[in-house]
Amino acid sequence: MERKQYSLGLDFGTESVRCLAVDINSGEEKAMAIQEYSDGVINGGLPDTFVQLETDWALQNPRDWLDSMRVVIGKTLRDGAIDSSEVVSLGISFTSSTVLPTTDDGTPLCFLSRWKSEPHAWPKLWKHHAAQPEASLINELAQKEKEPWLKRYGGKISSEWLFPKALQIFKESPECFAASQRIVEGGDWIVWKLVGQEMRSVCQAGYKALWNSEDGYPSQSFLEKLDKGFGQVLNKLGEKHFPVGTRAGELTSKMASQLSLPSGIPVATAIIDAHSAAVASGMDAQGRMVMVMGTSTCHLIMDKKEVFAEGVAGVVKDGVLPGYYAYESGQAAVGDIFAWVTKLGLPEDYYKESKEKNISIHELLLRKSVDQKPGQHGLLALDWLNGNRSVLMNSDLSGVLVGLTLNTKPEDIYRAMIEATAFGTRVIIENFEKNGIKVEEIYACGGLVSNSMLLQIYSDITGKTIKVAASAQTTALGAAILGVMAAGLEYEGFSTIENVIAKMTIPPQAVYQSNQGNHRGYKNLYEKYIQMHDYFGRGKSVVMKELKFCSDK
Amino acid sequence: MERKQYSLGLDFGTESVRCLAVDINSGEEKAMAIQEYSDGVINGGLPDTFVQLETDWALQNPRDWLDSMRVVIGKTLRDGAIDSSEVVSLGISFTSSTVLPTTDDGTPLCFLSRWKSEPHAWPKLWKHHAAQPEASLINELAQKEKEPWLKRYGGKISSEWLFPKALQIFKESPECFAASQRIVEGGDWIVWKLVGQEMRSVCQAGYKALWNSEDGYPSQSFLEKLDKGFGQVLNKLGEKHFPVGTRAGELTSKMASQLSLPSGIPVATAIIDAHSAAVASGMDAQGRMVMVMGTSTCHLIMDKKEVFAEGVAGVVKDGVLPGYYAYESGQAAVGDIFAWVTKLGLPEDYYKESKEKNISIHELLLRKSVDQKPGQHGLLALDWLNGNRSVLMNSDLSGVLVGLTLNTKPEDIYRAMIEATAFGTRVIIENFEKNGIKVEEIYACGGLVSNSMLLQIYSDITGKTIKVAASAQTTALGAAILGVMAAGLEYEGFSTIENVIAKMTIPPQAVYQSNQGNHRGYKNLYEKYIQMHDYFGRGKSVVMKELKFCSDK
Repeated sequence: MERKQYSLGLDFGTESVRCLAVDINSGEEKAMAIQEYSDGVINGGLPDTFVQLETDWALQNPRDWLDSMRVVIGKTLRDGAIDSSEVVSLGISFTSSTVLPTTDDGTPLCFLSRWKSEPHAWPKLWKHHAAQPEASLINELAQKEKEPWLKRYGGKISSEWLFPKALQIFKESPECFAASQRIVEGGDWIVWKLVGQEMRSVCQAGYKALWNSEDGYPSQSFLEKLDKGFGQVLNKLGEKHFPVGTRAGELTSKMASQLSLPSGIPVATAIIDAHSAAVASGMDAQGRMVMVMGTSTCHLIMDKKEVFAEGVAGVVKDGVLPGYYAYESGQAAVGDIFAWVTKLGLPEDYYKESKEKNISIHELLLRKSVDQKPGQHGLLALDWLNGNRSVLMNSDLSGVLVGLTLNTKPEDIYRAMIEATAFGTRVIIENFEKNGIKVEEIYACGGLVSNSMLLQIYSDITGKTIKVAASAQTTALGAAILGVMAAGLEYEGFSTIENVIAKMTIPPQAVYQSNQGNHRGYKNLYEKYIQMHDYFGRGKSVVMKELKFCSDK
Repeated sequence: MERKQYSLGLDFGTESVRCLAVDINSGEEKAMAIQEYSDGVINGGLPDTFVQLETDWALQNPRDWLDSMRVVIGKTLRDGAIDSSEVVSLGISFTSSTVLPTTDDGTPLCFLSRWKSEPHAWPKLWKHHAAQPEASLINELAQKEKEPWLKRYGGKISSEWLFPKALQIFKESPECFAASQRIVEGGDWIVWKLVGQEMRSVCQAGYKALWNSEDGYPSQSFLEKLDKGFGQVLNKLGEKHFPVGTRAGELTSKMASQLSLPSGIPVATAIIDAHSAAVASGMDAQGRMVMVMGTSTCHLIMDKKEVFAEGVAGVVKDGVLPGYYAYESGQAAVGDIFAWVTKLGLPEDYYKESKEKNISIHELLLRKSVDQKPGQHGLLALDWLNGNRSVLMNSDLSGVLVGLTLNTKPEDIYRAMIEATAFGTRVIIENFEKNGIKVEEIYACGGLVSNSMLLQIYSDITGKTIKVAASAQTTALGAAILGVMAAGLEYEGFSTIENVIAKMTIPPQAVYQSNQGNHRGYKNLYEKYIQMHDYFGRGKSVVMKELKFCSDK
């Protein structure tokens, strides 16, 4: 019997870590396990202390990462009846930006008794939103100073990224900042633990820490202007950054023994979870846009050339696959909008019907609107219920419904919102194409891809073919694929990354072709969408900004 | 013991007739009764035939008017222990435009066996909407020919009015049209029955039949251009029209015996129900705008002078009180919008809460939003869910919600819609004032006036004091007041119509004063409302028209 070879993909999420064991020769997903973090998202009290966190804080415990990783690898091997000697590589994807301060040897400050009661000593999760004042400060100064890196991020950065979080530490706990010899991304920290040396990935640095291969991080002088002394942060970040899929090193004997894995197996540099999903969805060349569709949608596409375009949330060389510039754009709310429609409420008999038919409210609304022709409900919506993170990059924007009548029903609004998010995607595609980045077809993954009506509408509106990733575990699968790359392409048939992807993924689960009649029908509505988009979004009307101002007061 | 004197107000509505007996010296509402029509609104099969009506038809049976009138008067006198000899006058208000064809002696064609199976022989109710093609034809030709009467109706007439309905008879049943020696309003027909002579009111003719005291009806040549032969209609309408409150005649002995009332008591010319409500609400001079607030809102105000203003749905001399030009404007949906919000649906626990607290869904939403400051919900709405019937006069317009976020709740939308209808009222007021018709205070009546939060918001937004009619039966009370006027002001203290109104109404039930802080807070939002109003409504965007076109296809 031929000896099996497995790559493990470890995906560190918001509430848990999952592990996927993939047969590197067949792409078979042999086993998958999930392990929740004991402390989960820390937003109440700090563990083992009496310290209460303020609003908008969201932390994690690095102990959870280590403990859960050990447990989940054991479970996966057991469930898949995999002998540990059959594991040949490890890849890591990690939710980002997760920012933690450590000592020079990588010990998290929160592990030290001196610091464990200081909230700033703990890793800040992506959804830590308490650094908004710092993000605003950075945006204002960068715009004023015309910082060169700003153009790579569409002119605005998010409070979820590394620099706002680091600046918050500096401002609110200067002692903790001084004690932080390194400020590290969670994914890079796990890799550091596994291989025994700090090997930062270009992916996290490029998309979340304003780094790029030509200019590095923002300049010392800019950081000092932000706050005197903050320039010190440059000494705490990476000196070198490595492309995604690089061999970060080999599993140390100490970690191998803790994890019951072979010592010396190759480990890849870390990748952000959404970007990992793009790899696993089949984005192996330019022209293929991946949509990671969940509560929000992340759009990724690669190209051999670098361009700077409005509304690109990040462009990073080697950020998804080596040899390509990878472009990110996004829609700040997608699944969240559909959930909002159901949360806003429904007629009483709809609840009854959904119970009787034993289907979800979402499914009920889909069924009630599935046969509608383009424009039949008479509505047009703008999908900015959580602001706009694509070409307009403006968090003051809000949602709109035009065309309401006394006959408008909840399923009409539901469908109009699906269409609005598809129009928003078409804006992103046209923006890429206007800037010379051709979108030939779309690959979709994430929680929303089981919704076939939604994907058909997306295909009809964009006019593009949409292929749905076969794997339900794309974030972990991408990590496993990068693990094989990191192993050095030494296995037979793995001479290029395209070959690795081809071997380790299976054909799309479903393919949606654009219905040309509907595509024409939606063209007229899309033109109206653009009119509304530009009227409310491009300064012709300041209504939204002022409404937000009123409601914030 | 002083002998009591009562005026009876008869209010003929959509489903029933009501009778109110008012003590003419104290204004005491002694008794009120309602009698439903046996045939109700006829929109299925014609009574006693096998004839089925087409969609959008809505008829009534004149037999119901007569039978129900007899019953309801009897009930009122019994309930109020009123001796029939104490009844000194009669007034009639009637829903309009109700159009019926009769012979020369006033016999409805539908009473004749020759015609009873012909739908066009029956009275067409206001909500008969099958004459829309005829209304469109009239509007197009009138705009082309620059008909002089068009300016009195804001440039557009409704399919609910007399001429579209008469033209529909002409086009679809020429024989029935030929047999119709008279084409009469329901209110005028009842008066004719009661006093034995045709005495048409300026109110119905002016507001619903394009008549005015200087030019009469539309010209023969215009009507012939509409359709050859239709000019004949002029011979079927009134030759003379009498101001509201005129003595149409005295109760005939035949009708007196049928109704068990004294023969020879004075009967007033008919008035449209909404206009009757205005009289009873205290509109006894210029500067006092009455809002009749229900599913839609009708706005009435009087002035000594005649002006032609955008969005005035009618201006009629002596149309509400003698000596004044009475102006009508309106909002096509008000209560209907709030009902739509509740029909659109609510979270499941809201239904539970409303049951537990034993309050309506409306009351629940009001309570949840009562403490909000102006703009707090972050929303701005346009209240055009049934088109716009005021300054824009455009049925292609539709409703808008701007400012939606993932946190928007149903009570926010409910409150935003209340505010939007109040902004719409402010537009009407400012339009009156721009045209020289001063609005000093507002009187409110109708089904919505029990909603105190709504009226406070209206007062805050408009900056005007709002007085709520004390009577819950304003349409019938107005008729009773006009009955006293018709009696010839012969009773002591009734020397002027102002005195009649003063004697027969009691002080407002509630008075709402504008909160100046909120008024200022709403000023900013109102400016945004106007921006949206003009953008969507004044041709800067054709989005709504095109959305309607798509959904109509």
